[in-house]
Amino acid sequence: MTRIGIVGYGNLGKGVEAAISKANDMELKAVFTRRNPDNVNIKTPNVNVYSLDDAANYKNDIDVMIVCGGSATDLPTMTPAIAKDFNVIDSFDTHARIPEHFANVDSAAKAAGKTALISCGWDPGMFSLNRLYANSILLDGKDYTFWGKGVSQGHSDAVRRIEGVVDARQYTIPVDAALEKVRNGENPELTTREKHTRLVYVVAAEGADKAKIEKEIVEMPNYFSDYDTTVNFITKEEMDANHAGLPHGGCVIRTGVTGFNNENKHVIEYKLTLDSNPEFTASVLVAYARAVDRMNKKGDTGCKTVFDVAPAMLSPLSGEEIRAHML
Amino acid sequence: MTRIGIVGYGNLGKGVEAAISKANDMELKAVFTRRNPDNVNIKTPNVNVYSLDDAANYKNDIDVMIVCGGSATDLPTMTPAIAKDFNVIDSFDTHARIPEHFANVDSAAKAAGKTALISCGWDPGMFSLNRLYANSILLDGKDYTFWGKGVSQGHSDAVRRIEGVVDARQYTIPVDAALEKVRNGENPELTTREKHTRLVYVVAAEGADKAKIEKEIVEMPNYFSDYDTTVNFITKEEMDANHAGLPHGGCVIRTGVTGFNNENKHVIEYKLTLDSNPEFTASVLVAYARAVDRMNKKGDTGCKTVFDVAPAMLSPLSGEEIRAHML
Repeated sequence: MTRIGIVGYGNLGKGVEAAISKANDMELKAVFTRRNPDNVNIKTPNVNVYSLDDAANYKNDIDVMIVCGGSATDLPTMTPAIAKDFNVIDSFDTHARIPEHFANVDSAAKAAGKTALISCGWDPGMFSLNRLYANSILLDGKDYTFWGKGVSQGHSDAVRRIEGVVDARQYTIPVDAALEKVRNGENPELTTREKHTRLVYVVAAEGADKAKIEKEIVEMPNYFSDYDTTVNFITKEEMDANHAGLPHGGCVIRTGVTGFNNENKHVIEYKLTLDSNPEFTASVLVAYARAVDRMNKKGDTGCKTVFDVAPAMLSPLSGEEIRAHML
Repeated sequence: MTRIGIVGYGNLGKGVEAAISKANDMELKAVFTRRNPDNVNIKTPNVNVYSLDDAANYKNDIDVMIVCGGSATDLPTMTPAIAKDFNVIDSFDTHARIPEHFANVDSAAKAAGKTALISCGWDPGMFSLNRLYANSILLDGKDYTFWGKGVSQGHSDAVRRIEGVVDARQYTIPVDAALEKVRNGENPELTTREKHTRLVYVVAAEGADKAKIEKEIVEMPNYFSDYDTTVNFITKEEMDANHAGLPHGGCVIRTGVTGFNNENKHVIEYKLTLDSNPEFTASVLVAYARAVDRMNKKGDTGCKTVFDVAPAMLSPLSGEEIRAHML
């Protein structure tokens, strides 16, 4: 059994707990929180919640810690700190800061003889893997990534900060016509506006100026101004009834040519359609936690990414079984 | 530079030659043939064609041999024999015999300190990888593989053996309604007939009994009797003009659920649309040849499959570059 610790019990941490319940070879050993542990009620029977400050006391009881914190402020310090005592895995997704985060986690993990894996999930994660495989196979080609239809939590939060907004949910939607061109191998050059539209549901405060809210949304720089955005005002009841989930997904497509005269065209597409973004991300983290444990037991220490993990390491099945049934 | 040797110069061998021409870090060193080398004209300038019998003379000049032979009779003996002198890679696709082939190649490669990789391409190969990744992430789910639209060379050959048939091309076509149900997460149980149809173009000999040919095709056990098959008789000119290519493709789909009450559904799909089956297969082989060379230089010997290769090993780029640009 691989013994897992969860750090942080928000949507992602809960998803990790649910994913562990599906794995016969894994066991949730403890949940660690920065809140008062007495106020954190988890679903798995007979598993304790501890203060994160006391985590080091349990270093011999846990094979891999899965850190379910935010990329902006939590993970840059938490993952290297935890790597001093534990094998560790996170879903750090601030692309521009990955080299720096990698270096920090690598030095902590190497010094402690631990194995760490950062930026795991679906993007970064499975989408990254598919970009790498497709680029390695079709050396002469072009990459496209589309996201959605799905809820962007960052964009939803940005709308919620507008005055007069009680609640908001933002869906990112890929433009069908653009996707069609890419899948046909037309290799289009696409602007931001041509790839995705944004759809926002807003619950406005009573008496709020809806026209002003809509204007603030569609003109918001970075978040909305480069997109065609539709704003729908709905009631709190409609929001709770129809927009409680966190669906997401998207696709990575590479088109390329082969042949001495580039005469043959190929399209590789990897597509995810997810009812629950956090539960799917968590399922990826748990599969990679299995690999991290195995890599550490083989003496392979330091910081890794999904690129460094042989696929067989992810499976609960043996090499013979996967060759016989999946090859 | 990784120095490549090609064994066998049919469609696949020619595809490997074309794929090497796209790779800046790889070099075609020689082609080996069982035919008279004087009769084999290759496209790459200043590269020699040798008799396969003389291959061992070039063992210090070649980093990886890519064996482009048939799975039925060539590869079971050729790959283990070549593994005595070279790192080697093949596309062995007789699923039931993979464990036996793996064992034979493994013992030859280990004894010689060489690295071998078998059953590489897209199915087995990229499809296998996607089955493994998706199964490791969604432990509670169901797998589907659809092939086509594409030319099945085995089925085309089977039709060509019928009396009165001059030429034939068989297309395997996935049934849209079945695909739709799978993509919707309906988890259908599908019979062979419900998943694929078969479309056959036949050039009949003058005076041949077309009704008899059609009956022989649609009733042929194993190949056609379990499918809805359409037979179209066409002229030799039409065959040459419209059916000269070898397109193929298909998709691997896994649907699964997460959550303590299985409340969230997810669909993972990997899809290939290929103008040239042999050139795409060859492009996968060449990417894995890069990995085989690197694994051997690290001392990782014996027989491998795509499951054992860390994705980063496939890329001509460095770890820093792929983390910065693809993660």
